[in-house]
Amino acid sequence: MASHQIEALTQALARLPGLGPRSARRAVLHLMKKREASLEPLLAALRAVADTLSTCSTCGNVDTSDPCSICRDAKRDDRLLCVVEEVADLWALDRSRLFPGRYHVLGGRLSALEGVRPEDLSIDRLVQRVSAGGIDEVVLAMNATLEGQTTAHYLAERLEKFPIRLTQLAHGLPVGGELDYLDEGTLAQALRARRPVA
Amino acid sequence: MASHQIEALTQALARLPGLGPRSARRAVLHLMKKREASLEPLLAALRAVADTLSTCSTCGNVDTSDPCSICRDAKRDDRLLCVVEEVADLWALDRSRLFPGRYHVLGGRLSALEGVRPEDLSIDRLVQRVSAGGIDEVVLAMNATLEGQTTAHYLAERLEKFPIRLTQLAHGLPVGGELDYLDEGTLAQALRARRPVA
Repeated sequence: MASHQIEALTQALARLPGLGPRSARRAVLHLMKKREASLEPLLAALRAVADTLSTCSTCGNVDTSDPCSICRDAKRDDRLLCVVEEVADLWALDRSRLFPGRYHVLGGRLSALEGVRPEDLSIDRLVQRVSAGGIDEVVLAMNATLEGQTTAHYLAERLEKFPIRLTQLAHGLPVGGELDYLDEGTLAQALRARRPVA
Repeated sequence: MASHQIEALTQALARLPGLGPRSARRAVLHLMKKREASLEPLLAALRAVADTLSTCSTCGNVDTSDPCSICRDAKRDDRLLCVVEEVADLWALDRSRLFPGRYHVLGGRLSALEGVRPEDLSIDRLVQRVSAGGIDEVVLAMNATLEGQTTAHYLAERLEKFPIRLTQLAHGLPVGGELDYLDEGTLAQALRARRPVA
C-alpha cells in the first residue's frame, strides 16, 4: 500500500544496525506524522553530516572535519597514542573520557582467514607517526580476540625499535562480572594477571 | 568528541521509536562509514518523502500523494469501509492484505482522561462519507481497549441511522495463544463469543 518513496525510505532505514523492517516501518510512520518535529530535523542533520563528512588524514577517525576534532584538540596529550582497530572502538574509548591522548585507527585487524594483511591496515602510517617522535607511550587497545591479539603482537614487533613505552589494555574480570558466568579464557587471564591486594 | 553535526544527527535518530542514544550512535557510525551505500540513499529517500508527504483528505492516511494510494486504487471495494484509530492501525491492517475495501482514520480515540472529544476526531467526516451513500458495510476496527471500545460504541450510535451493516473485529484467542498465558479479559471474550464446532 505504501508509495515507492515510503518503501524506499523504509528500506534505507531498515539497513541501519539496530533497525529491522518492522521498526523501520514504525520509524517512517513516526517521521511522517511528526514532519516538523522529526522529519525535517533529521533531514537537516543528515544533510549537514553528508556535506562535511571526512576521514581524518592523521588518525583515521571519521568526523566532519580533517584533521578531526580529537587531533585538533590542543588540550590533548601528544605524548600518548592509543591504537584501535576501528572507528567504533575509538568512539567507545573516547566516550569514557579516560584517555587524555591521541588515537590511531588501523581500519581493521590482521586476519589470515579474511585475507587482511599488514599493508591493508594503516600500520605504515602508525609507524611513521611514532618515528616522527614526541610520543612516549603507545597503548595497543585491540579487541581481546585472537585476531586482535595477533595484530597487537605484530604491532609490538614493528614498534619495538622506537624509544617508547608499549602497553596494552588489561584483561580480566569485567566490572560486575560474576565468576560463575565468565568464560574460562577470561578467568585464566584474570588469574594470570592477579595483583597483590593493596 | 563528536562534532556538533554528528551530535545533532545522533539526537535526531535517537528520537525515532525503537532507537535509543546508544543504537543511534551505532547507526550514525554506520552511516558515516558507508557513505555511498547508506548515508546518501537514506538522505535521498528522506528528501523524497519530505517533498511529497501529505495527509489524504479523503481517509486521513499519510502518504506521498493526496488522495492516497488506497483511495486511488480502482480495484478496491467502495462498499466496504474500515474505520481505524490511527494511521499505524491502517498500515497494520493493510499489510495483512485481507481487507479489500477503503479506510477511514479517526486520528485517535475518545478519551475522557486525555480530553479527546468527538469533535477532535475525524468523525463528522466519517458520517459525511457514509451519508454520501454507496457504502454497504462499516467495520469498526478500534483497539480492544476501554477507550477504543467506547469510541466504537459512540460511532455505532452516530451511524445507526444509515442503511449499512455495522461490524467490529472479533475478539478472542490470538493465533498461537495459550489459555494459560492469556488475561482474563481475553478469555472472557473468547468464551462469550464461542461458536459451534463446524
